[in-house]
Amino acid sequence: MTYCVAMCLKAGLVFAADSRTNAGVDQIATFRKLHKFVVPGERVIVMMTAGNLATTQSVLSLMRMRLNSRHPNLFTAHSLYDVAAIVGATGREVVSRDGGLSQGNVDFGSSFIIGGQIRGEPPRLFLVYPEGNFIECTPDTPYFQIGETKYGKPILDRVVDQDMPLDQAIKCALLSIDSTIRSNLSVGLPLDVLRYHRDSYTDEHHFNVDEHHQSFHALGEAWSQGLRNLFHTLPEMEW
Amino acid sequence: MTYCVAMCLKAGLVFAADSRTNAGVDQIATFRKLHKFVVPGERVIVMMTAGNLATTQSVLSLMRMRLNSRHPNLFTAHSLYDVAAIVGATGREVVSRDGGLSQGNVDFGSSFIIGGQIRGEPPRLFLVYPEGNFIECTPDTPYFQIGETKYGKPILDRVVDQDMPLDQAIKCALLSIDSTIRSNLSVGLPLDVLRYHRDSYTDEHHFNVDEHHQSFHALGEAWSQGLRNLFHTLPEMEW
Repeated sequence: MTYCVAMCLKAGLVFAADSRTNAGVDQIATFRKLHKFVVPGERVIVMMTAGNLATTQSVLSLMRMRLNSRHPNLFTAHSLYDVAAIVGATGREVVSRDGGLSQGNVDFGSSFIIGGQIRGEPPRLFLVYPEGNFIECTPDTPYFQIGETKYGKPILDRVVDQDMPLDQAIKCALLSIDSTIRSNLSVGLPLDVLRYHRDSYTDEHHFNVDEHHQSFHALGEAWSQGLRNLFHTLPEMEW
Repeated sequence: MTYCVAMCLKAGLVFAADSRTNAGVDQIATFRKLHKFVVPGERVIVMMTAGNLATTQSVLSLMRMRLNSRHPNLFTAHSLYDVAAIVGATGREVVSRDGGLSQGNVDFGSSFIIGGQIRGEPPRLFLVYPEGNFIECTPDTPYFQIGETKYGKPILDRVVDQDMPLDQAIKCALLSIDSTIRSNLSVGLPLDVLRYHRDSYTDEHHFNVDEHHQSFHALGEAWSQGLRNLFHTLPEMEW
């Protein structure tokens, strides 16, 4: 499985993804799910993937191979809307090509979160469905999730707000992933975390969180301990 | 959908269930999912249901109709293990009878949580799968969930402990349901809550939590506010 979460806030964008891939519990591997297409000073496009690994890898390979071709591509797209349309179309192309022999037992579908900023636009965030159609984030619900989304949703629903500073938003994303990791074996470290400041057109704030990351451990520990302490201060029920 | 959670602790048992049933978002109704079979002073059996409503209702009807027959039934079973086996067998009987015409589009399956105490045994808790087989709770993981389980699992994983007093355990179950209600429209009030004290052989601590329940609101509000406060005290990330 996979868990990826991204937020589109007034201050910019936040992305976080785990890196565990599994096909059955005895076939677990680490594959990065956060990918970047950057022209410094002009565009930063971040893509996170969930679903069939063969499909997501092919979609990425095709998009990279076409970057300097006459195909519509991620370096020439005029808007992030166009980028989402290209990703959706490439996903359909791959599933059409590879899905023919399936007897319905294999799910070839993949979902994508695509965010970033192209000069001339504000930062934008899209969710591309396995069918290739897509939706855009709005201020009412400023986050998207793909993969194993349920365990980590309550903390997002309670805390995320489009006025949050990016550093707070990253903490919230990490806690959402931490909850998911605790409840589901198929989501695991290391994590990819990327913080994009509005109008910066750079991907320099891209961090790796592995099992030795002190600050991530301290965050998870403070949250766990704080939750237990909070639980013991709750009012008694009256029946 | 449905969400039910139960815990088997040293002090006794705790059960909590929502009451929303839906077949599509425009067909929502309230059906109780917590049912009791009680012989005061001798046995208390509590059953919670999730899945196909026609199946769960038929299973319950058949079990009630057979209470005073020569069929193996819930008033004559010598152990809670036997009760779980009866529930599983009745579930298989109903699905065999009613599932014949299905073209695979309808899921006839139901899950059951069964807990209680029969004189001569300690309190026990079982989870019966749609296939009719079942597992029993052990001290390592002293809770079971059925229905829409994921949103409410992180709080259980962090807090539940078999040494907890029953009142604390009920608060934990209510918070788990509260998180689920906030994240999933198909789970809703009113709730059924039952607290069973070990060796009491009575179901008298059975409570209804509806939208006007002050104490439940106060609990959810204290938890939400506490979480937000806790979030703002977390250490900063260092990269």
